[in-house]
Amino acid sequence: MSFDLVLFGGTGDLAWRKLLPALFQAFRHGSLPANGRIIGVARDDLSDTQYRDLIASRFDAVIQEKRPSAAEFDRFAALLQYQRMDLSRPEDYAALAARLRERNADTVVMYLATAPGLFTTACEQLGAAGLATPNTRVVLEKPLGHDLESNRAINAAVRTVFREEQIFRIDHYLGKPSVQNLLALRFGNTLFEPLWRRETVASIEITMAEKLGVEKRGAFYDGTGALRDMVQNHALQLLCAIAMEPPINAHADAIRDEKLKVLRSLVPWTPATLARDVVRGQYAAGSLGGERVKGYAEEPGVPPDSRTETFVALRTEIANWRWAGVPFYVRTGKRLASHEAHIAINFRPTPHPIYRSPLGAANRLVIHLQPRDGVALHLFAAGQEKRGMRISEVQSLAPVHLDLDFEQRFGTERVGAYERLLLDVIAGRLNLFVRADEQEAAWRWVEPIMQSWRDSDEGPRPYAAGSWGPSAASAMVAREGHSWMEEA
Amino acid sequence: MSFDLVLFGGTGDLAWRKLLPALFQAFRHGSLPANGRIIGVARDDLSDTQYRDLIASRFDAVIQEKRPSAAEFDRFAALLQYQRMDLSRPEDYAALAARLRERNADTVVMYLATAPGLFTTACEQLGAAGLATPNTRVVLEKPLGHDLESNRAINAAVRTVFREEQIFRIDHYLGKPSVQNLLALRFGNTLFEPLWRRETVASIEITMAEKLGVEKRGAFYDGTGALRDMVQNHALQLLCAIAMEPPINAHADAIRDEKLKVLRSLVPWTPATLARDVVRGQYAAGSLGGERVKGYAEEPGVPPDSRTETFVALRTEIANWRWAGVPFYVRTGKRLASHEAHIAINFRPTPHPIYRSPLGAANRLVIHLQPRDGVALHLFAAGQEKRGMRISEVQSLAPVHLDLDFEQRFGTERVGAYERLLLDVIAGRLNLFVRADEQEAAWRWVEPIMQSWRDSDEGPRPYAAGSWGPSAASAMVAREGHSWMEEA
Repeated sequence: MSFDLVLFGGTGDLAWRKLLPALFQAFRHGSLPANGRIIGVARDDLSDTQYRDLIASRFDAVIQEKRPSAAEFDRFAALLQYQRMDLSRPEDYAALAARLRERNADTVVMYLATAPGLFTTACEQLGAAGLATPNTRVVLEKPLGHDLESNRAINAAVRTVFREEQIFRIDHYLGKPSVQNLLALRFGNTLFEPLWRRETVASIEITMAEKLGVEKRGAFYDGTGALRDMVQNHALQLLCAIAMEPPINAHADAIRDEKLKVLRSLVPWTPATLARDVVRGQYAAGSLGGERVKGYAEEPGVPPDSRTETFVALRTEIANWRWAGVPFYVRTGKRLASHEAHIAINFRPTPHPIYRSPLGAANRLVIHLQPRDGVALHLFAAGQEKRGMRISEVQSLAPVHLDLDFEQRFGTERVGAYERLLLDVIAGRLNLFVRADEQEAAWRWVEPIMQSWRDSDEGPRPYAAGSWGPSAASAMVAREGHSWMEEA
Repeated sequence: MSFDLVLFGGTGDLAWRKLLPALFQAFRHGSLPANGRIIGVARDDLSDTQYRDLIASRFDAVIQEKRPSAAEFDRFAALLQYQRMDLSRPEDYAALAARLRERNADTVVMYLATAPGLFTTACEQLGAAGLATPNTRVVLEKPLGHDLESNRAINAAVRTVFREEQIFRIDHYLGKPSVQNLLALRFGNTLFEPLWRRETVASIEITMAEKLGVEKRGAFYDGTGALRDMVQNHALQLLCAIAMEPPINAHADAIRDEKLKVLRSLVPWTPATLARDVVRGQYAAGSLGGERVKGYAEEPGVPPDSRTETFVALRTEIANWRWAGVPFYVRTGKRLASHEAHIAINFRPTPHPIYRSPLGAANRLVIHLQPRDGVALHLFAAGQEKRGMRISEVQSLAPVHLDLDFEQRFGTERVGAYERLLLDVIAGRLNLFVRADEQEAAWRWVEPIMQSWRDSDEGPRPYAAGSWGPSAASAMVAREGHSWMEEA
C-alpha cells in the first residue's frame, strides 16, 4: 500500500515536536507502510534537502530515547519532501495536486496541523483543486472551533468537501493505551457489567491534574482555558467511555453511536446547577516542589487582568436508566499538587454491615491513566489480628487493594499516542477519532457554562499554585459526602 | 479473668506439637489472660516439674522462630501443672475436681486432645464428678466419629453433660487467617455480592493439595482416608463460606445457621451421581521434586492391600435460588504435584464478545489459602500493541490479573490457627467452631459416598505420586468444559 501524507503546518511546532517524531518511531519500528512519502507544507521557501535538515536539527531535542544515527535518520528522511504553499493561493494547490499525481498513491492523507482558522479555506481549496478524492483522508487537529457555532461551521465546511468517513478529528488523548484500555476492561470482562450501574455505584470521579502551568503557551491558552482545552474533549471522552452502554461491536461507528447517546443524555445545565455544580479557578502564585512559581496572570503572553480559567471542577448526571441520579465529578487544572489522571468508580457502601468497618468505608475501582497506567480495586479484608492484639468476636475490617500495573504487565515498549493515531489514519481506522455529531454534542453541553461565565461579574476563583484548586471544588462534592481522590 | 485449661492427652503429640506451643506463643505475645493455669492430664506418673521438663525438651523441635530462653520458658512453665489420670476411673476425676476447686477459676476449659473413643467416657465422668459447671467449656478435637452414627453418638453423649454453647468442636482450618478472611471479603464488600450467583458464576473450584504423603501416620490415616480427613470437614467448611447467604450478623449462631442451610441444600447423591461425580484415588510410587517416593500401600502402618483413598475429587451442586445448577468442584489429595489450597470462582464468559479474546476466556477470582494467602482477580485488558505489531481495528484482549498478597499487606506477624482458636475458647467466642447440626449435616452428605465405596468391587484409582491425581478427576470436570486450576 502506498501513501502520501501531506503535512500542512510542516514546519510548525506540532509537526516537528510530535508528528514527525511519531512517524519516525513508526518507521523505526517497521510499522509505517513501506511505500510512503511525507510532504511537509509551509510558506517558507525550502528545498526538500533544506526541509530534511531543518527537521534533523530539531529531532535531537525531541527524540528522547535512542537517538537515530545519521544513517538511520537519512533512511527516514528519504520519505520527506517539501512543498511551499500559501494556503490562500489556488495555484499552490494545483502545484500540490501535480506533485501528488506524480505517484498516485493508494492513500492520501491531508494532515491539517495548522491554525484552525485555516481549516475551512484549506478544505475548500483542496476540493476545488480536485484533491478531495475518495482515497483522501483529512486529519483535523484540535481545537475545532471555540464554541458550538464555530465548530459546526468548520465541520460543515469540511463536509462540503469530504465525507464523514474521510474525516479524522484527532483527540490525542484517545491514542493513549490507558484510555484505549478503558473499553477493553469494560467490555472484555463479564465482571464489571453487573456492577456498572446506579444500583451499585455511588459516584464517579474523573480527575486530570497537571503540575505544569501554561509554559510558553500563555497567549494561546488565554483564548482557550481549561474548559475548552480539557473538559469539552478529553474529560467528556473519558466520561463517555465509562458511562456508555455496551456497543453492538467494536467498530468505529458502533462505539461512536454509544458515546453520542451518553453526550445527549448529559443533564442540561440550569441557572441553579451552573451556580452550584461548576467551579472555575485560576492559579495564583504559589510553590511547587519547593520552588516558587508565578501566578497565571503573570505568565508571559497572559493579560494581567485575564479571567481565563486554568481549573474546572463540575458535577453532572446522566439521565438514563443505567446512571440516573449518580453524580459524575470532573476535575482538571494546571499547577495542581500532582501530575495524575485517574477515574474512580466509587461503589455504594455495604447495605447491611455486619463487621466493624472504617467510617464511610466503600469499595472503589480506580483506573489510573497517568503517570501510572493501571487498575486498583479497593476492598476490605479481615483486619488481621496481629499478635498480642485484642481479638473481638465481631471482625474488624481493614482496607486493602488489588493492583495491576500495565507497564509491569506489558512492558514499556508500547506505541505512543500520536504514532498509534497516525498509523490509524494511514490504515483508515476511525475507532479512535471523534465524529462530528459527538463533537457538536460536547460543545452543546459546555456552551451554557461558557455563557454563564461571560455573563458573570465574578472571575475564576484564585488558587495557590501547587494546591488542589479552589476550596469551593472540595465543598461542591463534600455536599454529597464525596471527597476527591488525592494520591499525592 | 482467671482460667484453668485442662489438657487431656497432655503428653500426646497434639499437645506438645501444637497446643502447648500455641499457648506459649499467646503467652509470649501477651494475649493469654494473665491469671491462668494449664493442667496437663495423662496416665503417666509425673510431677509438675517432670511435666515441665518433658514439654521443655520437646519445645526445641517445634518452636520454629525465636526459641525461648530458659528464663522465658520458665515464666511460661510456671503456668503448667500436671495431673495423672486414668480416664476410666471416677476417683481420678474427683482428684481433678479437688485441684480445680483450689482456685475456682472464672473459666475452666476441658480440652479433649485424646483418642475420640474417650470423648463419651470423659464427658460422662466429668458430669458425674460435678465438673460440667456453667463456666466450663469443652473442646473436642477431630475426628468426631467416623460416620454419621458415631458422630451423633458422640454429640449426644457430650450434650447430656454440656450445653451446645459450651462445646467447642475444633476444625483448625477455620483458625487460619486466610479462611477467616473469606467471609470478610464476601460480606465486608459490596462489590462481590452482585456477582456471587448463578447468573454470573459458571463454576466454583475448591482445591486442597498436599505434597506430603501420610508420613508416620499411616496406621491412623488408613482408618480415615481423604474423604473423612479433608472433605467432610475442611472442604465443606470452605464450601459453606463461599456459598452461604449473608448472615444477619457476625455472631456465631447467625453464621452457623447460614452454613447449615448450605449443607442442607447440597444435592443428595444418587447412584448415578455417585458413579459419575466422585473420583477416589490412592497414590502409587512416583517422584516428587526429583526424588522417588513410595506408594501409599508401601507406607509404614498401611496394609499392602489397603483400599483407603488418599485423593478425592467430586462435583456437587447446591439446590437453592442463588446456586442452582452451578457445579462446585472439590479436590483434595496427598502426594500431589503441588502444596496449595485455593478457591476459584469461575465467571461465565462475556455474553457478547466484541473483541478478539483468547479461546474460553472468562474472568476468575482466586482466593489463595496456602501457601500464599491472597486474592487474584483474573481479567482481560487491551492486548497492548507492541511497537511494530500489526494493529487491528478490533482490539485483541490479553489476560491480566489484579493481585493482593495478605502477607505483604499485613506482615507475617499473624496469629497462628491454634493460637487463635485457643484464645477463642478461653474467651468463649464460638464463631470459628463447628456446631453439632453442621457436623451432622456434613456427615449425612458424605455417608452415601462412603457407602458406595464399601459396596464397590473396585478400589481407589492409582495415581503416581507427584501427579495431579487420577486422570478420571480431570475427565470428570472436562465434561463440563472445566479444567482444574493448576498453579505449579
